[in-house]
Amino acid sequence: MNQGPLGILAGGGPLPGRVAQAARRAGRDVFIIAFEDFAEKAVIGGFPHEVVRLGAAGRIFAALRANGCRDLVLVGPVRRPSLLDLRPDAEGARLVARIGRAAFTGDDGLLAAVVRVLGEEGFNILGAHEILTEAVGRSGQLGRYAPDAQAEADILRGIDVVRALGSVDVGQGCVVQQGCVLAVEAIEGTDAMLARAGGLLRPGLGGVLVKMVKPGQDRRADLPTIGPRTITAAKAAGLRGIAFEAGGTFLTDTEACIEGADKAGLFLVGVNADLTKDKTSALPGSTQ
Amino acid sequence: MNQGPLGILAGGGPLPGRVAQAARRAGRDVFIIAFEDFAEKAVIGGFPHEVVRLGAAGRIFAALRANGCRDLVLVGPVRRPSLLDLRPDAEGARLVARIGRAAFTGDDGLLAAVVRVLGEEGFNILGAHEILTEAVGRSGQLGRYAPDAQAEADILRGIDVVRALGSVDVGQGCVVQQGCVLAVEAIEGTDAMLARAGGLLRPGLGGVLVKMVKPGQDRRADLPTIGPRTITAAKAAGLRGIAFEAGGTFLTDTEACIEGADKAGLFLVGVNADLTKDKTSALPGSTQ
Repeated sequence: MNQGPLGILAGGGPLPGRVAQAARRAGRDVFIIAFEDFAEKAVIGGFPHEVVRLGAAGRIFAALRANGCRDLVLVGPVRRPSLLDLRPDAEGARLVARIGRAAFTGDDGLLAAVVRVLGEEGFNILGAHEILTEAVGRSGQLGRYAPDAQAEADILRGIDVVRALGSVDVGQGCVVQQGCVLAVEAIEGTDAMLARAGGLLRPGLGGVLVKMVKPGQDRRADLPTIGPRTITAAKAAGLRGIAFEAGGTFLTDTEACIEGADKAGLFLVGVNADLTKDKTSALPGSTQ
Repeated sequence: MNQGPLGILAGGGPLPGRVAQAARRAGRDVFIIAFEDFAEKAVIGGFPHEVVRLGAAGRIFAALRANGCRDLVLVGPVRRPSLLDLRPDAEGARLVARIGRAAFTGDDGLLAAVVRVLGEEGFNILGAHEILTEAVGRSGQLGRYAPDAQAEADILRGIDVVRALGSVDVGQGCVVQQGCVLAVEAIEGTDAMLARAGGLLRPGLGGVLVKMVKPGQDRRADLPTIGPRTITAAKAAGLRGIAFEAGGTFLTDTEACIEGADKAGLFLVGVNADLTKDKTSALPGSTQ
């Protein structure tokens, strides 16, 4: 195959490195665009890469083309820039104009527009979950522990809440305890939300963290991610477990996540996405 | 009129005292049930009252009946109790059974059930906004400052977000900056959300706070409230103004709010609730 190296547009966290490894294992070279202030040197340092400002679209396109990249993957969180701190170069300004200011409302509005524009520039955008298939959380109970009836009810309530939020392109997570929504995630990130929820916990059975893909979200953009740190933060917040959307969530290190959850006494369950009709079928207990 | 004193079920903040004053000005006696850990002594101390635990429904009914109260008002925030820390008395346990555990999901589910049960017990529930009419925020620009185009766009986005949240019975507020939702309110309260939003603010034009009544919310339960402290917190968070639902929001001290907003350089606008068809008509600029 003469398809050239896979271009990886890398934000923060370990996933860009995992995607690069997975591509190499499949026999494909990679070239990483490491977004300044987001991509971590320890993660991307071992691969051919160039560190570029988010707004420097001209440099990004030039580097991708110079390295023969046609297939691209966007992976790793990037905090959505304001138009002001984007400081676009000439090419970037042209793209911002094409994307339109309207896209700067909501996270996915922007990411979807970026994916569209990259496509128009002749690139082919792949989903990170298509390459790093082994890190995509599967359906059902992953560790030793399973949600009880109260936790199942909290998960279903959390799914409703995250869906409602997602319909207006906000957040991907919330914390529910005994039917009460303790915290809802906007741009602060899951760890900050968990820390806050810990302080709002009430007596009795602890809460659950629910993370879901936004309805209609382009899965080639940013998927919800759970890592060992999420497990630690959930435990510290007094939660009883984590539910994530199966097939649409990255577990950055599945084994470490399961081991951490087992040690912490937390459940870790993948719920099915097609909840529109019968929500109870989302829960692993009812599909087994 | 031999209608007996108005019974005031009082949570926190200054509004229970304001309702009591308004009732007295209208020539009616009052009797206050001051919820322990919520009602403030400085606010209710000057009126006949009894301090009662939230779960002590038997004592509450007995006190209301002993004082001849048939009309009741619920006013002032009460943090929703878990079933465990409610510690109901015998009458309370009977009511909890009647309300049903299901009502303990979502804030309004519970409040609406409480209003219903009080009605079944022979009480007549009034809305605090019907008594304290002068504290209900009106439509339009209240102070010296008006939202500009970016702020109007942020307000409309915030309305969408709060409505979506409200449809699943969560929160009443959010903070939007340049189209991006910085923070969404669950049970942490508006002040905590504002403090968080301040740390998430991005360069450029600051954000706006949007507070709305939940769709379908029983207005005899807890309405969104804005006070001078909200103005101070919004200013400290780097916001440019506050939009609230006209006719459905209490300004605990309208003059102090307007004065505070003017001093801080913030706008303060009441938006119309009937936004379903034409959202732009919600904004004061387009109705003037």
